[in-house]
Amino acid sequence: MPESHGHRRTALRAHLREREVDAMLVTDLLNIRYLTGFTGSNAALLVHAEDEATAERRTVLCTDGRYRTQAGEQVPDLDHLIDRSSAPALARRVESDIAHHRRVGFESQHVTVDELDVLAEAAASAELVRTPGLVEQLRLIKDETEVEALRRACTAADRALADLIERGGLRPGRSEREVARDLEARMLDHGAAAPSFETIVAAGANSAVPHHRPDDTVLANGDFVKMDFGALVDGYHSDMTRTVVLGSPAEWQREIYDLVAAAQAAGREAVRTDADVRTVDSAARTVIADAGYGEQFLHGLGHGVGLQIHEAPALSQRGNGTIGSGMAVTVEPGVYLPGHGGVRIEDTLVVRPSTPELLTLTTKELVAI
Amino acid sequence: MPESHGHRRTALRAHLREREVDAMLVTDLLNIRYLTGFTGSNAALLVHAEDEATAERRTVLCTDGRYRTQAGEQVPDLDHLIDRSSAPALARRVESDIAHHRRVGFESQHVTVDELDVLAEAAASAELVRTPGLVEQLRLIKDETEVEALRRACTAADRALADLIERGGLRPGRSEREVARDLEARMLDHGAAAPSFETIVAAGANSAVPHHRPDDTVLANGDFVKMDFGALVDGYHSDMTRTVVLGSPAEWQREIYDLVAAAQAAGREAVRTDADVRTVDSAARTVIADAGYGEQFLHGLGHGVGLQIHEAPALSQRGNGTIGSGMAVTVEPGVYLPGHGGVRIEDTLVVRPSTPELLTLTTKELVAI
Repeated sequence: MPESHGHRRTALRAHLREREVDAMLVTDLLNIRYLTGFTGSNAALLVHAEDEATAERRTVLCTDGRYRTQAGEQVPDLDHLIDRSSAPALARRVESDIAHHRRVGFESQHVTVDELDVLAEAAASAELVRTPGLVEQLRLIKDETEVEALRRACTAADRALADLIERGGLRPGRSEREVARDLEARMLDHGAAAPSFETIVAAGANSAVPHHRPDDTVLANGDFVKMDFGALVDGYHSDMTRTVVLGSPAEWQREIYDLVAAAQAAGREAVRTDADVRTVDSAARTVIADAGYGEQFLHGLGHGVGLQIHEAPALSQRGNGTIGSGMAVTVEPGVYLPGHGGVRIEDTLVVRPSTPELLTLTTKELVAI
Repeated sequence: MPESHGHRRTALRAHLREREVDAMLVTDLLNIRYLTGFTGSNAALLVHAEDEATAERRTVLCTDGRYRTQAGEQVPDLDHLIDRSSAPALARRVESDIAHHRRVGFESQHVTVDELDVLAEAAASAELVRTPGLVEQLRLIKDETEVEALRRACTAADRALADLIERGGLRPGRSEREVARDLEARMLDHGAAAPSFETIVAAGANSAVPHHRPDDTVLANGDFVKMDFGALVDGYHSDMTRTVVLGSPAEWQREIYDLVAAAQAAGREAVRTDADVRTVDSAARTVIADAGYGEQFLHGLGHGVGLQIHEAPALSQRGNGTIGSGMAVTVEPGVYLPGHGGVRIEDTLVVRPSTPELLTLTTKELVAI
């Protein structure tokens, strides 16, 4: 792991030099985790970039006394500073070594207006320049360490759902809340540190509400049961939705299920290097619109996943840009018929030059239970 | 509930008028929840203050289309605006009604440097002025609706621990992780929406690590088992720690347990209206230091709890100011003997003019299991 972190810092430095910035003060904890592996709740990181030969030696992680041991274990390859006020402490370090820190970038998308005052005072004669989103830009493309974590997160979710079904956990009489807790417990059994977001279990008419919160609604025969859930493994989030039917599917259920499944396949098919995000969205959306259900698919097709459950890129008509090999995205069309029920089918996948790599492997055939 | 929210907005307006601010743009989601009851994940709130007669009518909650119904249900008493870019949309509203919005406060402790650019452009000729921490200041003193939510959160945690012990959930052979999951599940059974933070279960030598994460360590006879946990109810967090012994306590265990219990009682005793936060900390710290364990009590005595698990005031030597009636705080001294074990005892309580109101009611006698 320390090796990938070193590579990521090297990649960041190239961007910093391009902007003629001598160092960057990273304060977003996820970005710090990405660049160093540190998982504590208080940290700042000064990534030096002036000169590659001395850059790692001048790069410093700052955290407080609670994390002294943890920082030593998780980040053996960098210098540490122990100070409760981590970002201002590093800004003072900049000032004390001003010969090598004339221009210092900061995360203007993360630093608050009040925090910047404190940093500017501590950094004194150094010039603080905005470098928003640089680390997020790197995080878009997952390296193999990250894909492996995503793979394990997706596997934990797949196995949890398989267990749930196999052991009769989805049955008339159980409440949505019970099913959600059962599914979450099974993800923990399969190695998740936690669910990657609040599990959605939506039965019957509730399945027509895109982000229904599980409540005391009891599952009944004939219901669609929509489950949107994920596992958190090594900081990486999986995201998957499956919709099943209790008992024999009615004709309208089979119809919208098949439609959403076809749209989802078209969306996956469109996921490839250099595809425009709007084109990917359209690939699935057209299938649904052509069947006359365009108004019933209200949300974007998908989003990036990684250290955050929702991150760039957005696969939607509001997004822009293209996708690249190594991005991890979801593809999750849905059709929702208010008062009746709805279907969403969602996978997590990694963009590759041609066919994407599917990480969530549970069947997408209509399962009747 | 809408009534308490209205009172809170009225209280905020008094502060705004004092600062000669016509309105405040609130963007922190917890502050929005506090002022309106809205729990969605995207919102901004423009609290008008120019003139009490028209203030509520000009106050607007903005959120996106996903939350249209929810906003109507949770905030029936305010005007709504539906726009995905909630804060900029309200800044544009300011500009379009500039006669009534000459000076507009914003949360400089929360708005990022980049976000401020966007807001300033949207607000155009209105003057954006820093009003950091105003809502947090109000949140310090809990009203009865809030104390009731805290009470229910503390009760859920008390009952979960009672169940765990009664049903044999604390026994040699179980792992810390299993115990933590069991305790969390029981909090949900007793009405918690979620644990209020990642449950700590630390057995044997691990109990000497203040913030140990539960792992595969197996509980053994003779162990201290330290459990730090809480329940989330209606957005409010409880926080409590109990340390028990498996089997008969050894002499050293009884000694440090009694010491921490005495320090904790002294700390609670010192919690009263107008007490200095350092004095409260000292009341407990002195007991431990006098027994020669001062170096083994490494953290502050306590912190505020409410919509956040950690909020103001800090009861520690680094804090400043006094506590007031209606604040909710924890009192949690500990003594940690590395390699052997540690004890922490923590309650959540509400500051009252004389004796504080104890919300976590589980016994603080040494329980041997």
